[in-house]
Amino acid sequence: MSRQSNRATDNKKMNSELFTLTYGALVTQLCKDYENDEEVNKQLDKMGYNIGVRLIEDFLARSSIGRCQDFRETADVIAKVAFKMYLGTTPSVTNWSPAGDEFSLILENNPLVDFVELPDNHSTLIYSNLLCGILRGALEMVQMAVDVRFAQDTLRGDNVTEIRMRFIKRIEENLPAGDE
Amino acid sequence: MSRQSNRATDNKKMNSELFTLTYGALVTQLCKDYENDEEVNKQLDKMGYNIGVRLIEDFLARSSIGRCQDFRETADVIAKVAFKMYLGTTPSVTNWSPAGDEFSLILENNPLVDFVELPDNHSTLIYSNLLCGILRGALEMVQMAVDVRFAQDTLRGDNVTEIRMRFIKRIEENLPAGDE
Repeated sequence: MSRQSNRATDNKKMNSELFTLTYGALVTQLCKDYENDEEVNKQLDKMGYNIGVRLIEDFLARSSIGRCQDFRETADVIAKVAFKMYLGTTPSVTNWSPAGDEFSLILENNPLVDFVELPDNHSTLIYSNLLCGILRGALEMVQMAVDVRFAQDTLRGDNVTEIRMRFIKRIEENLPAGDE
Repeated sequence: MSRQSNRATDNKKMNSELFTLTYGALVTQLCKDYENDEEVNKQLDKMGYNIGVRLIEDFLARSSIGRCQDFRETADVIAKVAFKMYLGTTPSVTNWSPAGDEFSLILENNPLVDFVELPDNHSTLIYSNLLCGILRGALEMVQMAVDVRFAQDTLRGDNVTEIRMRFIKRIEENLPAGDE
């Protein structure tokens, strides 16, 4: 669906439950559409990417946040502002690599998986992979190429949900970017 | 995806923009999957129904609202509590039938369609039809059979979005109900 480029920044706050259930319907539909979990994971990442490249505009307008000085500041903005704004939860930032180019977001509560249980035949499904795509797409629009993946997932028996982010490079400005 | 029956009622408030974009991804996927708009409309209604029969439990827990005395009270609860809670917007209740068995919800702002434009080849798509299914499913779980449909839609050139609701009958309790 096409979207106009001018957007309002009104503040419609909603409870996350309807979003959680609607996201579940989306994942269920993709599981019907694609042959295996790997394809579903890929599709979720791609959809997330396309959402991220649009959401960043809304985020910058709402948050009035300017360019981050370094990856550490980026990490804090993602956790404390973006996650809070769009998912109503604040992950902790941790497990920094010595070089400062990798960190983890630890989610105690992942609203996407409230009350979800993976069926046995979807043991390799990365249920919340949309989030990785969103982060990748949004950061690309502010000239950061970042690798994003789930390192731990409560749905797969881990104690917490961990999203691992690795800085790849700054992207030269003025390159065309768009839907994948 | 299966969901456990015990549910928390914590208050994760989020901005609607991520939900809006994710819903757009769902509709886009269905448009790829199904041959024509009519099938997509049907599918959205069915998905909504399955969401509604689950969301009602969360709604009753959060709102502490008991049984409504009549359809007028039901209308007010839907508009002022449910829409506010899950979509962050409050439609007006209007256009009552003389018999009091039909009314309209008028949405000045439908968060699902923020910035959406229907492509020309989807002129019969009822983009937000998930909402009709949700209302139908949720009300069925509190023993009300209700017909729900879009009467007007800003996406199709109307000035407002109007959801028309018609009371059909009270459902006998203790009948089994579940996914469609």
